[in-house]
Amino acid sequence: MTERAAVKAALKTQAVETPSWAYGNSGTRFKVFAQQGVPRDPREKLDDAAKVHELTGVAPTVALHIPWDTVDDYAALARHAEDRGLRLGAINSNTFQDDDYRLGSVCHPDASVRRKAVDHLLECVDIMDATGSKDLKLWFADGTNYPGQDDIRARQDRLAEALAEVYERLGDDQRMLLEYKLFEPAFYTTDVPDWGTAYAHCLRLGPKARVVVDTGHHAPGTNIEFIVATLLREGKLGGFDFNSRFYADDDLMVGAADPFQLFRIMYEVVRGGGMSGDVAFMLDQCHNVESKIPAIVRSVMNVQEATAKALSVDRDALRAAQRDGDVLGANSVLMDAFSTDVRPLLREVREEMGLDPDPMAAYARSGWAEKIVAERVGGEQAGWGA
Amino acid sequence: MTERAAVKAALKTQAVETPSWAYGNSGTRFKVFAQQGVPRDPREKLDDAAKVHELTGVAPTVALHIPWDTVDDYAALARHAEDRGLRLGAINSNTFQDDDYRLGSVCHPDASVRRKAVDHLLECVDIMDATGSKDLKLWFADGTNYPGQDDIRARQDRLAEALAEVYERLGDDQRMLLEYKLFEPAFYTTDVPDWGTAYAHCLRLGPKARVVVDTGHHAPGTNIEFIVATLLREGKLGGFDFNSRFYADDDLMVGAADPFQLFRIMYEVVRGGGMSGDVAFMLDQCHNVESKIPAIVRSVMNVQEATAKALSVDRDALRAAQRDGDVLGANSVLMDAFSTDVRPLLREVREEMGLDPDPMAAYARSGWAEKIVAERVGGEQAGWGA
Amino acid sequence: MTERAAVKAALKTQAVETPSWAYGNSGTRFKVFAQQGVPRDPREKLDDAAKVHELTGVAPTVALHIPWDTVDDYAALARHAEDRGLRLGAINSNTFQDDDYRLGSVCHPDASVRRKAVDHLLECVDIMDATGSKDLKLWFADGTNYPGQDDIRARQDRLAEALAEVYERLGDDQRMLLEYKLFEPAFYTTDVPDWGTAYAHCLRLGPKARVVVDTGHHAPGTNIEFIVATLLREGKLGGFDFNSRFYADDDLMVGAADPFQLFRIMYEVVRGGGMSGDVAFMLDQCHNVESKIPAIVRSVMNVQEATAKALSVDRDALRAAQRDGDVLGANSVLMDAFSTDVRPLLREVREEMGLDPDPMAAYARSGWAEKIVAERVGGEQAGWGA
Amino acid sequence: MTERAAVKAALKTQAVETPSWAYGNSGTRFKVFAQQGVPRDPREKLDDAAKVHELTGVAPTVALHIPWDTVDDYAALARHAEDRGLRLGAINSNTFQDDDYRLGSVCHPDASVRRKAVDHLLECVDIMDATGSKDLKLWFADGTNYPGQDDIRARQDRLAEALAEVYERLGDDQRMLLEYKLFEPAFYTTDVPDWGTAYAHCLRLGPKARVVVDTGHHAPGTNIEFIVATLLREGKLGGFDFNSRFYADDDLMVGAADPFQLFRIMYEVVRGGGMSGDVAFMLDQCHNVESKIPAIVRSVMNVQEATAKALSVDRDALRAAQRDGDVLGANSVLMDAFSTDVRPLLREVREEMGLDPDPMAAYARSGWAEKIVAERVGGEQAGWGA
Repeated sequence: MTERAAVKAALKTQAVETPSWAYGNSGTRFKVFAQQGVPRDPREKLDDAAKVHELTGVAPTVALHIPWDTVDDYAALARHAEDRGLRLGAINSNTFQDDDYRLGSVCHPDASVRRKAVDHLLECVDIMDATGSKDLKLWFADGTNYPGQDDIRARQDRLAEALAEVYERLGDDQRMLLEYKLFEPAFYTTDVPDWGTAYAHCLRLGPKARVVVDTGHHAPGTNIEFIVATLLREGKLGGFDFNSRFYADDDLMVGAADPFQLFRIMYEVVRGGGMSGDVAFMLDQCHNVESKIPAIVRSVMNVQEATAKALSVDRDALRAAQRDGDVLGANSVLMDAFSTDVRPLLREVREEMGLDPDPMAAYARSGWAEKIVAERVGGEQAGWGA
Repeated sequence: MTERAAVKAALKTQAVETPSWAYGNSGTRFKVFAQQGVPRDPREKLDDAAKVHELTGVAPTVALHIPWDTVDDYAALARHAEDRGLRLGAINSNTFQDDDYRLGSVCHPDASVRRKAVDHLLECVDIMDATGSKDLKLWFADGTNYPGQDDIRARQDRLAEALAEVYERLGDDQRMLLEYKLFEPAFYTTDVPDWGTAYAHCLRLGPKARVVVDTGHHAPGTNIEFIVATLLREGKLGGFDFNSRFYADDDLMVGAADPFQLFRIMYEVVRGGGMSGDVAFMLDQCHNVESKIPAIVRSVMNVQEATAKALSVDRDALRAAQRDGDVLGANSVLMDAFSTDVRPLLREVREEMGLDPDPMAAYARSGWAEKIVAERVGGEQAGWGA
Repeated sequence: MTERAAVKAALKTQAVETPSWAYGNSGTRFKVFAQQGVPRDPREKLDDAAKVHELTGVAPTVALHIPWDTVDDYAALARHAEDRGLRLGAINSNTFQDDDYRLGSVCHPDASVRRKAVDHLLECVDIMDATGSKDLKLWFADGTNYPGQDDIRARQDRLAEALAEVYERLGDDQRMLLEYKLFEPAFYTTDVPDWGTAYAHCLRLGPKARVVVDTGHHAPGTNIEFIVATLLREGKLGGFDFNSRFYADDDLMVGAADPFQLFRIMYEVVRGGGMSGDVAFMLDQCHNVESKIPAIVRSVMNVQEATAKALSVDRDALRAAQRDGDVLGANSVLMDAFSTDVRPLLREVREEMGLDPDPMAAYARSGWAEKIVAERVGGEQAGWGA
Repeated sequence: MTERAAVKAALKTQAVETPSWAYGNSGTRFKVFAQQGVPRDPREKLDDAAKVHELTGVAPTVALHIPWDTVDDYAALARHAEDRGLRLGAINSNTFQDDDYRLGSVCHPDASVRRKAVDHLLECVDIMDATGSKDLKLWFADGTNYPGQDDIRARQDRLAEALAEVYERLGDDQRMLLEYKLFEPAFYTTDVPDWGTAYAHCLRLGPKARVVVDTGHHAPGTNIEFIVATLLREGKLGGFDFNSRFYADDDLMVGAADPFQLFRIMYEVVRGGGMSGDVAFMLDQCHNVESKIPAIVRSVMNVQEATAKALSVDRDALRAAQRDGDVLGANSVLMDAFSTDVRPLLREVREEMGLDPDPMAAYARSGWAEKIVAERVGGEQAGWGA
């Protein structure tokens, strides 16, 4: 197989998971802008996700968020997905949108609130059993706003206890993906603020616990690809929540703010053996001002472009230049891959997969946008967050 | 008058404006936690503000936010305030919570949206006429989320045009206070992102236009007291929106995150002649997890403590050490004032003003918290933001 | 002229000024690594710069730094430059490497130190007269390390007085370019820390005073292209000190850390009329670990690539999408230009200019590196900074 | 023992280690300002450190830096220390100031450079044997400046191999303290950039390996006390390199930039059992513009003040408020301790220790400054870094 054929083969098998909540309305604390045609229930979210997969060919799974996607019959929901060529992906827990969680969930000072939170997490594993999902994705909004508000260390003890109970409940093929985040909604301490904390907990829990890297959850200046390389080296990288940011957790389309960074991240994934299927590539974005479905299509394409460039790096030449201490030469090898326009290659990939080479134009022509605006009238639009 | 007497006299005349919205519910994009007893209309917000003023003696005015505090009869609202020993303060405009403002307000590409926004600002001046408010405070959520989304420079032209029309409408004793903010809710560009942009616009507008410094609206590492000193030197500091932050615009209680920074800011205010009445000391906070009224009382006290320390700096000794290039000596003079416990002095000030020396304890004893929980049942709680 | 021809014409006339000090050794406070073949005097720096211009065709001027480039006969130095196809560019002052400047230069509390600093600046204008340089570039390391160390406002007064005296001395065709920097070497206050401060001073000084944007001198999260657009709108952008950074003022090769940002900056330059010759494109970099001359060649090429992409933006399509509020469409237009590989276009440009299409390879083949290593033996290597 | 007596007892036993290099000249890459009377050899540094200990009573050990403090006879140096009431503290390695280390030391691509670096580390352990030092403090300047320059993961492998060899060499009572740093002098990747990386290596090495927290080595917004609490919970906190910063690794006097942060850090130390002797409290500062010895005295006092406040927190009241979810109450308990002026308490502590209650004034009166200026003439002043 030629180099180019190998790159194309890898691109055809890459899978990007889209999040159900990105199809619904979202916003900031200042305003959630409603868009026409937004889904009103989990089924309609899957319908939109199916459109994205139909156009891109590489978005076969959809992450659910509980309780936003709570249904009576998860098996039926899974069938609804299958009928559209999809599978249900990671189950995302939510322990932040109940009044009881004002001071935390699994780290709350009150044991009864912690119990409630853990029970929710266990319920999420039940749902995984019903949907066939492999990954439980845990993000905790837990933290404090003021120095002294609670005991930093006691909260870690409570967290460890909760995680251990949930880990115990996991089936043989199920994983726990633990996400970290620098801040927001808590503004003084966050109980899982960085990869080190998530890593330390996962290490104690065991091999089924892995760290999730949300690309928007770091302090300014953090070298994310370094974290990716380190977690892969330690066998602890579970996956990504992709999005992009200029300031904080802006949740913009992945690749929109710093495409070179996304390329560097994907290069470390490729170099560290992360393309083998073990690492989940998930989107976690909020399309506050732009149209949601095409924004997700575009995001999937941005991941593909970064991956294509990462796969195209001349690794032999890179290794040689690195070995020789040729700083400019080594940098040039990497930059050559980044500077190359991979859009023609990806058009070929899509054509070989029987897809339209231009998914954005295909969506515009499809009539789907007009159809959902016309049909999804009445009912309550799905919305993310508050 | 002794030094100590002069400090006390200054502290007795300092006025801190509390914002009507801080008495209502607030939160993050993830969740707004409801609290019991929260006001259900502007009158109840004033009732709470009156309690804060009764306890602290230095919070005689309340900022309104339009349309959150829209009433049919502003003169009646002003009388409601006066009956409780208060006056209505700055009028804060809101051009971010209408679906029309998805892509901006005064900077929107569509002239009809800009017209609507400007009309709202002009209406705010009408309200100032009715309430006797002196200051129009303008904060614009305008900006873009993606590179290319709109033309940076054309948006500045639109902004300048809108500001000019509103400036023209101001009465002789009215001022326009223009606020800047690094980011949020816009995540790529913000149309007034820094003091330089606000300053440049105010300079062109004329003497009635001044810059407002919100202490939470800066990039990491920004030296806020430098900006304060510079704006006072240029005669362009209109006032403060006080709050504190560890990360972004966290809107925590002022002085909670970095009390030394607050002291340094207040020192520049004192040194730059900002205690003479021209500079408005306003709070702009969100009490997401803590009780709102005592949080505001505490915030007022925090401003007082920082002010008391700033007033206590031995400026002759400081000047001498600075002149001599005595780095450690000059720093020591400043640190001596900061290290001093000014709470006894402030207790004296309160007693001399006929107040309880411990406003927090007095509030706890007052029964107000229990009273509003019991009485404010039914109706819709006031809430900040989305 | 076709669109492509116009882009090529613009690229052929763009001029990038290289700094004499980038040809010498540089490092961090931890270590300055010496490289073989480094220039030992200003003439040898010009020889290297001539090589860069010979290879790229767009680096015709060299910035000098006084006193690092002090010579007895500046007219002779200018002739040395001319003989090699170069001109002398901006004169950069240095008021930070003398023991007298421990507490500042033009802002120092002691008037005699200020006098010395101003005299140095005036001497730089004398040198401009001798070299024919048009721009005096001022960067002040002035600031304080500790709160209280000196009076923030008094230092602004001293700064204003110094600048006014130097401004007065400028000839009709000479400009003063004032640079700002967030921090380093001062760690508490810096006397010109942001564009707003530089702008305010330039405004008072008059039309010959302009602001310089060093791309590495901002707080994390600062939107540099916004500043560029704003300064162009105000007629106050004097030029750039190009370099790139991941953290602070890292002084890496321009375009190495965030090529998308560089493209956005160049787009605002193009859109704001900054390609007409009024804006100086200067490099200000430190090649601590990489070979200096090829690093500078590469940097010039990086500026060219960003410029080529910026010139290639379909501005009609962009304007239409922006006008229609088509967020994704407008973003796509910009991204299309960025995603395009402009290296073939630049190879054409170089061939049409009679240059080797691959300047890096041409340098490697030229033997210059070997020649200077062999010839520049003995004497003292030029070094930047401490 | 009363509460107050217990606080005083703890303060009397706290030990702060001062670094030999802080007594020498230091600066930034722009300029190292020389001061009069600066030590010219390790013995004179110890003489100055003895003065600091004589004045403060709590600075009994001095950290050495190899090769800056290389001597022929370490036993003699240890006796010189003992004669002045001091002991030699941590041995700090230096693998960054040799031309061979341009591309790294223990992570260098070339095995011979790695060998040289490891040999230096082993030599440092030999020196520990001679001096009786218990701690080997490792900080690596290793990293890369450009994407692609070297392989992130391979460098981790090399690092792990080097650390393992050195760890093996440690004696039973010797520890390895591994320091992390976000950036500088490397500007793209740093091989030990955060506590997570240091922790992961220490975990693999074994119980004698611990993490050092340098308070200036974090990304903006990092919650340092959270890291301290976490490392103490994991039994992996080895000690501190204290200093303070407004921007990057400014190396200002500890407590000078954010005294509230220092208090919060010390509170977590106290709460987490870190006062028992296992955690090393070291200074690592650069006194670029201020007088060195009094700056170190002041720094020791700042650590004492923060410790005194941390020890004074009413932990029963805090625990009760935290348990009750009383956000404002819990915050108040902490703030009460911070707001209290502990300088009178510390004066008592010093008097009870037979010291002058005001070490700064005592130093000024001591004549030491004049003595060293007069005596230390000729020879080469000690200097930090480049």
